[in-house]
Amino acid sequence: MLESTLAAIRPLDEAAMAAARELQGRLTKPAGSLGALEPLSVRLAGLAGTCPPPLPEPAAVAIFAGDHGVHAQGVTPWPQEVTAQMIGNFLAGGAVVNAFARQADASVTVVDVGVATPLPADPASDPAGPRLVAANVRRGTRDLTVTAALTRDEARAAVETGIRVAGDLVDAGAGILLTGDMGIGNTTPAAALIAAFTGVDPAAATGRGTGVDDETYDRKVGVVRAALERHAPDPADPLGVLASVGGLEHAALAGLVLGAAARRVPVLLDGVIAVSAALAAAAFAPDAVGAMVAGHRSAEPGATAALRHLGLDPLIDLGLRLGEGTGALLALPVVTGAVRVLHEVATFDSAGVAEK
Amino acid sequence: MLESTLAAIRPLDEAAMAAARELQGRLTKPAGSLGALEPLSVRLAGLAGTCPPPLPEPAAVAIFAGDHGVHAQGVTPWPQEVTAQMIGNFLAGGAVVNAFARQADASVTVVDVGVATPLPADPASDPAGPRLVAANVRRGTRDLTVTAALTRDEARAAVETGIRVAGDLVDAGAGILLTGDMGIGNTTPAAALIAAFTGVDPAAATGRGTGVDDETYDRKVGVVRAALERHAPDPADPLGVLASVGGLEHAALAGLVLGAAARRVPVLLDGVIAVSAALAAAAFAPDAVGAMVAGHRSAEPGATAALRHLGLDPLIDLGLRLGEGTGALLALPVVTGAVRVLHEVATFDSAGVAEK
Repeated sequence: MLESTLAAIRPLDEAAMAAARELQGRLTKPAGSLGALEPLSVRLAGLAGTCPPPLPEPAAVAIFAGDHGVHAQGVTPWPQEVTAQMIGNFLAGGAVVNAFARQADASVTVVDVGVATPLPADPASDPAGPRLVAANVRRGTRDLTVTAALTRDEARAAVETGIRVAGDLVDAGAGILLTGDMGIGNTTPAAALIAAFTGVDPAAATGRGTGVDDETYDRKVGVVRAALERHAPDPADPLGVLASVGGLEHAALAGLVLGAAARRVPVLLDGVIAVSAALAAAAFAPDAVGAMVAGHRSAEPGATAALRHLGLDPLIDLGLRLGEGTGALLALPVVTGAVRVLHEVATFDSAGVAEK
Repeated sequence: MLESTLAAIRPLDEAAMAAARELQGRLTKPAGSLGALEPLSVRLAGLAGTCPPPLPEPAAVAIFAGDHGVHAQGVTPWPQEVTAQMIGNFLAGGAVVNAFARQADASVTVVDVGVATPLPADPASDPAGPRLVAANVRRGTRDLTVTAALTRDEARAAVETGIRVAGDLVDAGAGILLTGDMGIGNTTPAAALIAAFTGVDPAAATGRGTGVDDETYDRKVGVVRAALERHAPDPADPLGVLASVGGLEHAALAGLVLGAAARRVPVLLDGVIAVSAALAAAAFAPDAVGAMVAGHRSAEPGATAALRHLGLDPLIDLGLRLGEGTGALLALPVVTGAVRVLHEVATFDSAGVAEK
């Protein structure tokens, strides 16, 4: 499934992009006055292969949840059980991602791809509410300071879970996918992935996650550095990188991105976990970058290194560092607005407005 | 009316802000992880005087339109008639502001506060669609390189028009006001206002507006410099500044801001025209800044100087330079999301999620 997905990922359609550029020039606004929204609309036309591209509706957030053996190294003050507890919060609609998803009219799908502790019962009280997909590959990764976090087969299973979720959401009608994540400790493997794929130093790839103190931060940088030295991951072998220093939710998110790109549906990236996974997706298939929209710039320094490597400029930059998909959801109206302009705005000709 | 409005503008409510800070600390997310959204939610609680503050719904965009005598100095390549033609486009729903307003479920009110050329007939085809308010103070300003743009009485009439529009929109139920503007040539008086109120050099306050060439840009800077030298506006006399170097839509927008602040309703600022008017509002009543939310950072350099002077950080920074209210509308979901968190997100206690 991974191989056929990669084979389906193609470059952007140049003719549709040219049509979008030409249309932007005829709309009743000064040329270029919509700033970053104009090239975004052009790229989404190229992805869809038509101008205007479809409005990115409805939106679907996929939150991949997993735990991390490296939690044993004291890289975070939060107990591992919080991953499962927050899944309960997502399913009950009480998390920030739920509030933002309701506002944006986006569905929420929670995927257990690797939670270590028992999950709460799915209340399934609201048929239109968040749903849980059981796809646990293993109960958390191994400790990457001791051994590879995953076997190649486990990493592949997680990537293929992401591809499958993308396909299911697109089959159900989603016009855009948004990445979400939950996993206590998951900024540590994200930093390792970013250092492995971009070549930046572990100190530049590592941030304070949920807000760790200086001592924990120093330990975290040391853990990332030790993991890279132990495994020497090869960025040309993304499955190997994901297996040695990644996480199950990171691997699944890479799969989600690949699945979206293969289906020519945009994927709106959330924060540092998402962009670390996007680096893996880009290593699998460089043309997958054409489907990626960077939702926001996480406060984590590694996110900026990853975005630079991907050549993506984020839409929102407000110092968020929550994850869950919250930054992607905040950016969604910007993406929709960029496309809506191509559908709804009058031309100088049709509106009888003089040009300069 | 101006004086009673100014007298009604009070500081933010400290108790409501303390309650919002305390609530933010109990919600199921790491403290501070929503970045700029957290202090924004605190400030809006302080404005409303209650925690949580009401959701900023429904939203109302007020587009003030005016023309400019300084157009005769060749500060823009666009014909003056475009102001009236774009009003036609707004009323027909064909402009970018209309597309964004439909997406955000915001009403659009167009106020002719100073258009020079005949207006198109109001199609009024859709009772829920954009409406036109006739409040023309004069058919465009005088050329500020030759004489004061407005008399003090004219400037006051425009400010009071803005106050009245704010009151009418709030009376009709608006939970947030968004500033919009239309006026060919209006970045020139905006630059003069910004230079007058902030003290920055005219070259640092002046941008390329809709995209003028080098020669026009140099002429524009010279015009702003000459206007400041001729009128030597006193920043402690905001009505005098608006009269000597402002515009009718700038004055009306200052009034809209003051009217919103007096009614304790947030006002979401668009681009360079809005922030130049906000400087006047802040000079009239420093506490009015508490009601202001900076929607976006316009590509115009003067906007950044004005935002710095006001102490406001913009929510969106995507290189927009269209005006109309488009940048404010793009930022609206961020404001709503910031408040929604206080309404809808579970606490650690209520959700049974462990803390660190």
